[in-house]
Amino acid sequence: MSISLVDLQNFVNSELIPLEPIFLQQGFGAILPKLHELRENVRQRGWWLPPLSRLYGGLGMPLTEFAAISEELGRTPTGHYVFNCQAPDVGNMELLHMHGSADQQARWLMPLAFGDIRSCFAMTEPEHAGSNPVWMDTHAVKDSDDYVINGHKWFTSSADGAAFTIVMAVTNPDAAPHLRASQIIVPLDTPGFKLVRNVKIMGEAGEDWSSHAEVRFEHCRVPQSNRIGGEGAGFALAQDRLGPGRIHHCMRWIGICERALELMCRHAATRELSPGVMLGSRQVVQHWIAESRADINAARLMVMDAAHKIESKGAYAARVEVSTIKYFVAGVLQRTLDHAIQAHGALGITDDIPLSWWYRHERGARIYDGADEVHKNVVARQELKKYGVNFRD
Amino acid sequence: MSISLVDLQNFVNSELIPLEPIFLQQGFGAILPKLHELRENVRQRGWWLPPLSRLYGGLGMPLTEFAAISEELGRTPTGHYVFNCQAPDVGNMELLHMHGSADQQARWLMPLAFGDIRSCFAMTEPEHAGSNPVWMDTHAVKDSDDYVINGHKWFTSSADGAAFTIVMAVTNPDAAPHLRASQIIVPLDTPGFKLVRNVKIMGEAGEDWSSHAEVRFEHCRVPQSNRIGGEGAGFALAQDRLGPGRIHHCMRWIGICERALELMCRHAATRELSPGVMLGSRQVVQHWIAESRADINAARLMVMDAAHKIESKGAYAARVEVSTIKYFVAGVLQRTLDHAIQAHGALGITDDIPLSWWYRHERGARIYDGADEVHKNVVARQELKKYGVNFRD
Amino acid sequence: MSISLVDLQNFVNSELIPLEPIFLQQGFGAILPKLHELRENVRQRGWWLPPLSRLYGGLGMPLTEFAAISEELGRTPTGHYVFNCQAPDVGNMELLHMHGSADQQARWLMPLAFGDIRSCFAMTEPEHAGSNPVWMDTHAVKDSDDYVINGHKWFTSSADGAAFTIVMAVTNPDAAPHLRASQIIVPLDTPGFKLVRNVKIMGEAGEDWSSHAEVRFEHCRVPQSNRIGGEGAGFALAQDRLGPGRIHHCMRWIGICERALELMCRHAATRELSPGVMLGSRQVVQHWIAESRADINAARLMVMDAAHKIESKGAYAARVEVSTIKYFVAGVLQRTLDHAIQAHGALGITDDIPLSWWYRHERGARIYDGADEVHKNVVARQELKKYGVNFRD
Amino acid sequence: MSISLVDLQNFVNSELIPLEPIFLQQGFGAILPKLHELRENVRQRGWWLPPLSRLYGGLGMPLTEFAAISEELGRTPTGHYVFNCQAPDVGNMELLHMHGSADQQARWLMPLAFGDIRSCFAMTEPEHAGSNPVWMDTHAVKDSDDYVINGHKWFTSSADGAAFTIVMAVTNPDAAPHLRASQIIVPLDTPGFKLVRNVKIMGEAGEDWSSHAEVRFEHCRVPQSNRIGGEGAGFALAQDRLGPGRIHHCMRWIGICERALELMCRHAATRELSPGVMLGSRQVVQHWIAESRADINAARLMVMDAAHKIESKGAYAARVEVSTIKYFVAGVLQRTLDHAIQAHGALGITDDIPLSWWYRHERGARIYDGADEVHKNVVARQELKKYGVNFRD
Repeated sequence: MSISLVDLQNFVNSELIPLEPIFLQQGFGAILPKLHELRENVRQRGWWLPPLSRLYGGLGMPLTEFAAISEELGRTPTGHYVFNCQAPDVGNMELLHMHGSADQQARWLMPLAFGDIRSCFAMTEPEHAGSNPVWMDTHAVKDSDDYVINGHKWFTSSADGAAFTIVMAVTNPDAAPHLRASQIIVPLDTPGFKLVRNVKIMGEAGEDWSSHAEVRFEHCRVPQSNRIGGEGAGFALAQDRLGPGRIHHCMRWIGICERALELMCRHAATRELSPGVMLGSRQVVQHWIAESRADINAARLMVMDAAHKIESKGAYAARVEVSTIKYFVAGVLQRTLDHAIQAHGALGITDDIPLSWWYRHERGARIYDGADEVHKNVVARQELKKYGVNFRD
Repeated sequence: MSISLVDLQNFVNSELIPLEPIFLQQGFGAILPKLHELRENVRQRGWWLPPLSRLYGGLGMPLTEFAAISEELGRTPTGHYVFNCQAPDVGNMELLHMHGSADQQARWLMPLAFGDIRSCFAMTEPEHAGSNPVWMDTHAVKDSDDYVINGHKWFTSSADGAAFTIVMAVTNPDAAPHLRASQIIVPLDTPGFKLVRNVKIMGEAGEDWSSHAEVRFEHCRVPQSNRIGGEGAGFALAQDRLGPGRIHHCMRWIGICERALELMCRHAATRELSPGVMLGSRQVVQHWIAESRADINAARLMVMDAAHKIESKGAYAARVEVSTIKYFVAGVLQRTLDHAIQAHGALGITDDIPLSWWYRHERGARIYDGADEVHKNVVARQELKKYGVNFRD
Repeated sequence: MSISLVDLQNFVNSELIPLEPIFLQQGFGAILPKLHELRENVRQRGWWLPPLSRLYGGLGMPLTEFAAISEELGRTPTGHYVFNCQAPDVGNMELLHMHGSADQQARWLMPLAFGDIRSCFAMTEPEHAGSNPVWMDTHAVKDSDDYVINGHKWFTSSADGAAFTIVMAVTNPDAAPHLRASQIIVPLDTPGFKLVRNVKIMGEAGEDWSSHAEVRFEHCRVPQSNRIGGEGAGFALAQDRLGPGRIHHCMRWIGICERALELMCRHAATRELSPGVMLGSRQVVQHWIAESRADINAARLMVMDAAHKIESKGAYAARVEVSTIKYFVAGVLQRTLDHAIQAHGALGITDDIPLSWWYRHERGARIYDGADEVHKNVVARQELKKYGVNFRD
Repeated sequence: MSISLVDLQNFVNSELIPLEPIFLQQGFGAILPKLHELRENVRQRGWWLPPLSRLYGGLGMPLTEFAAISEELGRTPTGHYVFNCQAPDVGNMELLHMHGSADQQARWLMPLAFGDIRSCFAMTEPEHAGSNPVWMDTHAVKDSDDYVINGHKWFTSSADGAAFTIVMAVTNPDAAPHLRASQIIVPLDTPGFKLVRNVKIMGEAGEDWSSHAEVRFEHCRVPQSNRIGGEGAGFALAQDRLGPGRIHHCMRWIGICERALELMCRHAATRELSPGVMLGSRQVVQHWIAESRADINAARLMVMDAAHKIESKGAYAARVEVSTIKYFVAGVLQRTLDHAIQAHGALGITDDIPLSWWYRHERGARIYDGADEVHKNVVARQELKKYGVNFRD
């Protein structure tokens, strides 16, 4: 079953966007009961979990088809949540779908896909730069049939209220750097797991799904069967996960951009500077609109192009394209939001409209899942290889 | 008495910067008792209220001398508050000092200068664009010896806990646009005054001094003797107030920039990307540092140049220079904060360091006290006048 | 017959690029005999005039197919000339093909398509801003069966050596502004036509096809049958001509960008900063490469998208997309050339490599065929129409 | 004797600017006789050679005073030439003044200062990156009392018609890198000296003073007494020379910027877009004007600040400030010229006005005398030293 974009847009406009004022003023918790009702609604419409395989209750939608859906959902902060295709859960689902054991799929993927539980992913460590993903201190040491895990992570998004995390931990310290870590499932009620705090980010600690935790693993003991994939495969699996994850972010960002442009145009079309003189008559505002329209169109075409390549040739073959859109679209996002805020004047910096939320929460877009600088190096080195030089990563 | 910059920097580093984590995590209220202790300390050191006349307990420091003080205080969010030279109070003090009646000075300026009360300034209206300051709906109608005021304002900064506001209200609706409004003192316990809410801005409603209120005046009755200056002089007084206000902001922004550059350099000098390889060895990070250093130096020189002109020729003569620095320095501020955040990676978007606070709260710098676009028009039209054309404002 | 891109690239690399040093050092005239030999070569390979209808000896290639050819030809300054699809001739051919009378096609289109003559297009007037194309002084007045034309034009590209020009002239001064002008063929040996000069542009007056003339029409008398299309249709025909013309420019610019990126990468891969340390190891150079790669990919996708829309829905339906790519791709072109020059250091500003030529000659890309500012207004006004406001052009 | 800026501006406006059309259309040679007349005029007014010591016929003007003169002269391409303070001669004069022997001063400095001869400086080699000034192939080998010099240089500006060059050549190949080269005077009629070509740069090979040569030294024999300063002092002397040279360039660039802004404003004030609607009424043009005004003011203040530091503390103490202005002002120059050209439309890219000449010839401003990237590294490393890390140059 497919999704009509017109129906979807109507749904977002009539059901989700009206929740924004409550979300922006009172926080995620205040709309959570309503979001759960809406999830039922979505399920009944047959719209549940578009990107995941039908085996697990999704729609099995290919990436190029999901792109338009994701853009539409991205127009409001909780769109993806209501369709159960929000990060980091959707990434965990894809990981477990592709690499999980049958037991892991039954125990963790099924309830996740059903929306009964939430999950998180513990990779980033405060002590180490994210630009060097193979350098970490968290260790998992074998002890009889178990792993005993010790470590310190942050930006473990949505840990607050999650049922389990997947943690990146060094299991093979003597292997080559890219082969040292494994990914291991840790239920959050495991003794020794501590959610230290929801890190206050850009003014808000958030709560529940809408939060980013600092966590500690102190002698956390889990069975070795909780390891996903082979020993030392953690980094390879993370790459598998981040590729699609990045394209998911880019698709969502385009939705944010379209919404920001819409807000900017609507304000320009209705705000009077003096009686009868509209904001939109100002040439500088017109140029912001035109530049954002061009930027967004370019971004969408690039994301679709990368999605096509992933579908036809696989994520590995498309990794340079994915790096390219990561920084290109993040830049478009930041410029578009900046224009839209400036066009709104004082209103633009208030939480009466969602621009401020995105401005704050998506400043991270140029940092998370690989900073702009890292992806630019990837792309440049690939270009330079064509001319016979090979600069090491 | 003058202030040693070395002593001042030591004071800021040892007494104020250590309060930042509490301020950033728990809010202004959590450090308020400590700030009041520090105010006593400042008073005893003879550092109280540098820019205000000695007549009212200040240091009577000229603008060019205060610039260096203000930059130092700007390095931390509460620096100016501790010296009682924070906006909007310092602007109100200057206004009352220059234009208040003896009674108004005794009743409102003295306790304000002493730090016993706080105040606010109600000008911006949600229904009207700030780029057109002569267009407003708030009216004050004479009734016997009183004014009866009705109106709706927002971005009435620091109204929460203030003793009085100065409100811009139309008193002479039939006069020419620039001669319609007056400035009137309204004690906040006046019946009919309502603080609707502290507007949530960039994620935080704030509290007390650190807040921006939406307020309503509903049949607020105050004596006509509360009017500051002549009938219809409101706009002229506002210009008088905003000129120095803008230069005060610019001076403070330079302090923010220097602190951001300091944080960026310190992080670059200590953060390892891999064992032994420092973040600061990356050419792109070095270029951010170099570009920010150049930008900040340029900004400081321009602000000092405008301050000199204000001192030697008056605020009116320097109004174009003030418009020029307003958008130039606001741009430097935004770029410098952006570089500093990007250099910090994930840490940069957390409230563990103050960059995020400034990134959010100073996005308004390109909007408040005249948006960039308004000031650019002022400067351009002045340039074009040299060539014989006079485009109306 | 189609064109193999591999064969084409080999041809460009082996036959055209080697002519660049002579062209850059000695000018267009110095390679003209060789270019005419190459035209024969191209004709024999069956590659002649890809975009024009087979009726007139072209390949009848659709726009989306021609895009890749045009990009390849754009990699060197004389690529399009050798394939006889250079501006302004190709635009004149399309115009005569679509709107010329049978006589006009026989007399002017056939030899043009065959490559026996060249042509030009006289529209821009020094006295009037190009942003207002309906405002012009050149007039054509009927006298018996003739028009008598008086006027002053410049940027009449390639007039030097051309057989005829198409001139925009007011024929119906009392009509509505968009219906006043007609397009009229004027053989350049018509008495009263004067080529005042090849305007020196960015350091070079140029010659022959590679030039931009200032011309005067002084009582030039031509038969009324030289008018193309109806009376007063000049502006509508110009729009018809400029739409595809703009997409042709964009396609060519992408070829320039690819060549500039290639030169930058090749230099980065081979230039030593010190023994064993390559320029390409510098992070800033890598970021220029990465940013240009992203920009160019975005530009190509947008151009292809606009070309598809023109093919499927017509030029009028795609006019906003064409405006969008006009400023977007011109911006990409300028940034890419700037990066490539900077990466080359002193060599980059010499005419030993073609970057300087494009830097100079394509500064006009943001101006000719509608300045950026004009196209941004078009796009913005179209966006704003969606929200119910209609700002006049 | 001082120079009245009003008189100077009148002189530039009435005597030099009228030569621009001839210079731009016909080249430097076409105005050379007139320039020599004007030199006499300047000499008689007592304005000759403002920055050089009175000992050698100059005005001995300190750097801070010369800044305003240089800005005024910079408003037209030949201003400095007419006052005999043009690069590279003025740099050679300062070098000979400070480090030349009495014989060298008598033989070379006196006629140079008098304006009887011209000179050049041969440092850059095509085979080596300018960012690494200590890496060169040109060698001077002692042979009895002479040096025998072999090498290949380019960007030997103004060699065409010069009487001598100062060449950087390795004399001590076994010393530390910074101590290997010496500066040696080579009369251009020395056998073995070859002016290979005036390199065509940005479309023009130029001639006489207005040119940049590629030269070869093939067994050029000069007496060892032609060496300036000690053996191996070449690099130290070059630093001495480049410091003031960079500030001279910055001062001149500000003059170019002011002229570009003037041309932009004048065009905006007089060009009609449609009857009665001036270009200057367009908000985007106003913003270009405002941004350029702010940029130029900032640039001038920074240059003056660096000049003050050089005067009070010496060139070495100010070297970081000089690096800072080098890239800051070069950036301002490029942006200002770009705005001014865009505001002029098609006229802006012609050589009918001087914008195109500067756009072309000052693209090198971000490259010559140390590319932006080199100077940014200098500034960044200096900043980072404050935090205890010392990245090697």
